[in-house]
Amino acid sequence: MCQFKKEVLHVGEMASGAQLTVPVYHLKSLTKGPKVYIQANMHGAEVQGNAVIFQLLELLKKTSFCGEITLVPNANPVACNHKNGEYTLGRFDPITGVNWNRMYHFNHRIIAPFAEQYLHTETTCIESAFKQLLQNEITNKLEHNQYGLTTGQRIAYQLQKMAHKADIVLDLHTGPISSKHLYCPEYAQESASYFNIPHTILIPNEFDGAMDEATFCPWWSLQTEFKRLGREYHFNKESFTVELGSQEQINLDVAKEDAEGILSYLAHKKVLQTKRYPTENLVRYACYLHDYKAFYSPMGGMVDYLANFGEPLPAGKPLARILRMDNYGNFNEKDETGVNESIHYLSLDHEVLPILHFASASVNQGTELYKVFSKFFVL
Amino acid sequence: MCQFKKEVLHVGEMASGAQLTVPVYHLKSLTKGPKVYIQANMHGAEVQGNAVIFQLLELLKKTSFCGEITLVPNANPVACNHKNGEYTLGRFDPITGVNWNRMYHFNHRIIAPFAEQYLHTETTCIESAFKQLLQNEITNKLEHNQYGLTTGQRIAYQLQKMAHKADIVLDLHTGPISSKHLYCPEYAQESASYFNIPHTILIPNEFDGAMDEATFCPWWSLQTEFKRLGREYHFNKESFTVELGSQEQINLDVAKEDAEGILSYLAHKKVLQTKRYPTENLVRYACYLHDYKAFYSPMGGMVDYLANFGEPLPAGKPLARILRMDNYGNFNEKDETGVNESIHYLSLDHEVLPILHFASASVNQGTELYKVFSKFFVL
Amino acid sequence: MCQFKKEVLHVGEMASGAQLTVPVYHLKSLTKGPKVYIQANMHGAEVQGNAVIFQLLELLKKTSFCGEITLVPNANPVACNHKNGEYTLGRFDPITGVNWNRMYHFNHRIIAPFAEQYLHTETTCIESAFKQLLQNEITNKLEHNQYGLTTGQRIAYQLQKMAHKADIVLDLHTGPISSKHLYCPEYAQESASYFNIPHTILIPNEFDGAMDEATFCPWWSLQTEFKRLGREYHFNKESFTVELGSQEQINLDVAKEDAEGILSYLAHKKVLQTKRYPTENLVRYACYLHDYKAFYSPMGGMVDYLANFGEPLPAGKPLARILRMDNYGNFNEKDETGVNESIHYLSLDHEVLPILHFASASVNQGTELYKVFSKFFVL
Amino acid sequence: MCQFKKEVLHVGEMASGAQLTVPVYHLKSLTKGPKVYIQANMHGAEVQGNAVIFQLLELLKKTSFCGEITLVPNANPVACNHKNGEYTLGRFDPITGVNWNRMYHFNHRIIAPFAEQYLHTETTCIESAFKQLLQNEITNKLEHNQYGLTTGQRIAYQLQKMAHKADIVLDLHTGPISSKHLYCPEYAQESASYFNIPHTILIPNEFDGAMDEATFCPWWSLQTEFKRLGREYHFNKESFTVELGSQEQINLDVAKEDAEGILSYLAHKKVLQTKRYPTENLVRYACYLHDYKAFYSPMGGMVDYLANFGEPLPAGKPLARILRMDNYGNFNEKDETGVNESIHYLSLDHEVLPILHFASASVNQGTELYKVFSKFFVL
Repeated sequence: MCQFKKEVLHVGEMASGAQLTVPVYHLKSLTKGPKVYIQANMHGAEVQGNAVIFQLLELLKKTSFCGEITLVPNANPVACNHKNGEYTLGRFDPITGVNWNRMYHFNHRIIAPFAEQYLHTETTCIESAFKQLLQNEITNKLEHNQYGLTTGQRIAYQLQKMAHKADIVLDLHTGPISSKHLYCPEYAQESASYFNIPHTILIPNEFDGAMDEATFCPWWSLQTEFKRLGREYHFNKESFTVELGSQEQINLDVAKEDAEGILSYLAHKKVLQTKRYPTENLVRYACYLHDYKAFYSPMGGMVDYLANFGEPLPAGKPLARILRMDNYGNFNEKDETGVNESIHYLSLDHEVLPILHFASASVNQGTELYKVFSKFFVL
Repeated sequence: MCQFKKEVLHVGEMASGAQLTVPVYHLKSLTKGPKVYIQANMHGAEVQGNAVIFQLLELLKKTSFCGEITLVPNANPVACNHKNGEYTLGRFDPITGVNWNRMYHFNHRIIAPFAEQYLHTETTCIESAFKQLLQNEITNKLEHNQYGLTTGQRIAYQLQKMAHKADIVLDLHTGPISSKHLYCPEYAQESASYFNIPHTILIPNEFDGAMDEATFCPWWSLQTEFKRLGREYHFNKESFTVELGSQEQINLDVAKEDAEGILSYLAHKKVLQTKRYPTENLVRYACYLHDYKAFYSPMGGMVDYLANFGEPLPAGKPLARILRMDNYGNFNEKDETGVNESIHYLSLDHEVLPILHFASASVNQGTELYKVFSKFFVL
Repeated sequence: MCQFKKEVLHVGEMASGAQLTVPVYHLKSLTKGPKVYIQANMHGAEVQGNAVIFQLLELLKKTSFCGEITLVPNANPVACNHKNGEYTLGRFDPITGVNWNRMYHFNHRIIAPFAEQYLHTETTCIESAFKQLLQNEITNKLEHNQYGLTTGQRIAYQLQKMAHKADIVLDLHTGPISSKHLYCPEYAQESASYFNIPHTILIPNEFDGAMDEATFCPWWSLQTEFKRLGREYHFNKESFTVELGSQEQINLDVAKEDAEGILSYLAHKKVLQTKRYPTENLVRYACYLHDYKAFYSPMGGMVDYLANFGEPLPAGKPLARILRMDNYGNFNEKDETGVNESIHYLSLDHEVLPILHFASASVNQGTELYKVFSKFFVL
Repeated sequence: MCQFKKEVLHVGEMASGAQLTVPVYHLKSLTKGPKVYIQANMHGAEVQGNAVIFQLLELLKKTSFCGEITLVPNANPVACNHKNGEYTLGRFDPITGVNWNRMYHFNHRIIAPFAEQYLHTETTCIESAFKQLLQNEITNKLEHNQYGLTTGQRIAYQLQKMAHKADIVLDLHTGPISSKHLYCPEYAQESASYFNIPHTILIPNEFDGAMDEATFCPWWSLQTEFKRLGREYHFNKESFTVELGSQEQINLDVAKEDAEGILSYLAHKKVLQTKRYPTENLVRYACYLHDYKAFYSPMGGMVDYLANFGEPLPAGKPLARILRMDNYGNFNEKDETGVNESIHYLSLDHEVLPILHFASASVNQGTELYKVFSKFFVL
């Protein structure tokens, strides 16, 4: 049995005075266990995670677990409500251009003094003291700041406060038009095999502002600093960004499968006491972040995307072809028909694994067409 | 054998001084025959018609035809270049909100004087004189106007000048996420069966600013006025809006099928002398414009679109379900689980045929969710 | 003494589930008198009217009046919250392009049957019966519509229901960068002189979807129909669109002056019993709607707006000059310096009175640069 | 006498195939002297710099100078053509959110090897070799990159190639609604007094992606590295971002004054041989970058901006007041009138110098309202 509690966060206020809120669902088992934090929809157009949280809530009604699970759908109502024409302008604050998932906080300068102070303290004390420090950092930002916070910081910091209390953090996103893939910290590579997701990007232990980094980097930095000071310390936190497929779509049936995949990972982490959610047997490709590359369009035009996601694409085989009807009939020496001037095939000189592509057929010169694993291996 | 000619229209100028141009392809047979005008991409995101024109040009290289065919891809570069975030803001001028396909010109007041003047003239003279009058109307608008034209009028009028010279006009569009469908004037209903398109909307002989209406309404009005004056006169123009499927997509292979479907219709109209493009044998549903209805969302939320296009949906069966995670766990009397508050099924009390739906899962209260044939029949 | 009551309308729901509401302030005098309805900010960027309503509320605390006054600031929170970059996308629904002030309802077909039925009824009965009919029309739209309403209709109809109860309706707007001006129905021309506003556009008694028309057209149509049936009937409603200056600005001090100007008009209409708000002695220019013209830019470029609002501009004197740096140094015969190619002066061949201009220096070919009275007279 | 040359850069291609170009004006004196590079309008809405370049070109026709001056108006046609509604979406790539002025290139890793190699070379050789290295870096990026460049990089790198050849670089920008101010590298503080600009922000010698930094940081880093190796080396480059006032405005008369101010600085740097452009005698305030602070709105609402630019604002005096009409009449204990709930005054607890404010009255919670010098001194 478990306790169910619903809270409502106030995260923003529009020009009309309308309040924007975020619902927070807490499930608490009578059995002790890890704390899990799962959020969705920090980017406005990436809505499928909300459906996954719905299915998680439904599945957890009939699945016993230990510890606490916090679920936060609709995490960023400012972004989710920002329609630009028919679509949702999702990835950045439309006023400032700052990516909503680059506004979390981590102040590196807290690490060294803390490590020194707690060098000889026992491990469990360290954990609670460091958690408290991280909380205080955020609380200070939220409450003691005469110059205020940006719209995105106010949202991000409130979410981060909850995430800092957890041992396992999942941030549910999607790509534009995309395969399923996982951002996994390098140190947690082994866990990637317990999600039912065929592509993994292994990210270094560095902070660039995202939720996953914001939750594991402080601990990783602490472990590193302790090591420098001669103490062996191992933290026990994992944090992933789960990319569920394409944006601008809700599919409740697919969401159920995605939810089961997450439960498979949580069972591996001993949150669930059931074998109902076994890990799928699939080929999992992985790639280091510096080998995860964007391919930018060498010309403006209209794109027929050709390469399939998740299938290795041989060198020289086209990713896409670009239609340029303004050039039809422009004859050149190589091509007497003039067709070549209106259809351009785009390829690379080495094998890649396509992961996602741009959401629209119309691109300017320099638009990001595809993201690919430029080097990859089986996990 | 045929002549191939390429021209370039100047249709706009941006703030930086950049010139926006439209390519125009003329194919002229040595054999006399009807004049055909086909344009694509008047709405910025509706790009598939460009690929269809590419395939028409390629197919017409090896197909003998009579008359003249004018093909205009990229008809509205202002709209096609207007990205809003990742997507193209396609349907209206982003400064004024006016639909790009509601800016064509027709002045009803020219009809009565013309009909009176030509009441006893022979038919072929009427045709050339009326064509000239329509041309003059547009030329006047373009060239003698101290107060100038809007961005969209300048484009629309230049296209319309070409369309007015033709006997057959096809305006290639797409829906948001959509089945293929055809806007067909009621008087030309018989021709709808020669396109390989399963859904036809029969539109009245009235002018509301669109290209198809702008090309057939003057002739229809003239025929009606002659009738009022006691003269039997039959014009021989047809004009259709062809909706090729979904926006924001280019697929050159599908475009070839679409091009073949258009050639099937042109063969029926005696433009082609070949049986290579037979009409497909498919069930064609039709609906009058006043029965083609938009269904607006009764609430904000995230939509799982359920109804399939082109399959009659029985009364009471859901079109879509709306996810409202903010309401999860809000208990009400009817539903002790609280699920009903977070999932809402939307249906109608009569059978409909779904044709297209909105492009995004995120909707406000009042967003157009689906367009459906509320009454329909087999053509 | 008066009663003060505040209500809250629910007008919309965003994708996140956030509720959008509109505050409604009712002031009711113990003395009988006319009913007044004033709303502001139907267009998102046109915010100054909210400040005017604030000042009206403050001034009415210390001013005795008779009748009832309903004040509705923030009338369209969907529009007002729709930021596009730094600015507010204000004039139309960003999904459909439909002008928020063209969605009010008037069904012409109710007039003839009503006039026939009430041809011999006494005047006061007519008034209450017709008010009821107008209310019922709106209520039907709001409550009995399986296919739903658009986002804008849902807002507009709720506002219109309140406006239909009033004898005097003021809809507070602004232009882009603009002088103060007034849209006044032709039949109410005399009242225009009681506002402290120097420019008046006299609009015909026709319905084009705006609030002012939606409130006076039904009554005007009824009067006209009665006249056709031989009955003399005079209605006693006035409805104005008040353009308070430029958009994207709040100035509470200027708002106080604007509020006093409105009280001057209300005193003239016997709503106030005070001489505290005398009519200003200023030259008032008027122009018929068909002479109120937009001047569209003949080229793309960057605009130095030269003509001052409210000062007659002689024929040939420039409205604006356009900078085209891409053409600097392009020599032509007439101008050996090349400067003429980069600076273009724009003028008209007759005197005009400039009223407003576009909000940005950067324009495309065909952007509306200025709106002017092309013929005008002193009121 | 001087040579005048005009070139055209190809910087982008839109979806329609439209080419975007940038005009480049080169003036070359017969007398040797410094090389000057001036660009404008990298941010789309910041157009006044184009008018300043026009006036510079006109003034330089009649002013003798030495060296070479390169002038680049309309530097970013992608941004300048990107209208969002009436306004120009200017500061960032609308697809990616990346600030157009954060895409320049500087690779820190080139410094140490170069310094080592040239440790004992004579100064003038160092200069030309380092200039060549910087050019090569950019050329490599532009020409040898299978994965391509983003839209903004392609523009920025082409501009940077020209800027790297110059000794003096001016990047002309504007604020939203803004006073004139100058970004000046700390080492060049003395030069700030020769511009006719009352406010200077002193920026550290660090690279954050902007044009000014991209041109002086490599040299500063080289000087620092030489120092570390024991060699005294002084470079002679200056680079400023000049903020000309408010965006979305062209005023050719004000532009002439701005151009004269720039010539005043160029005369100080011995580019001009004239006393026609003396430095104005005005109080110049300066502030270090870390004391140049943004004040974020603590609430959503509509802003009446109160604080004047360039006048020290005492502690506690309001920067702005926020109107919240939805709260009018909400009574609280402190304020029986309910007015306080609808008008909120915003102030700081220390003296500041307001420099610019947001462009619109409508703000969300967290919108940047003002930028101020939080500590400042007379230069």
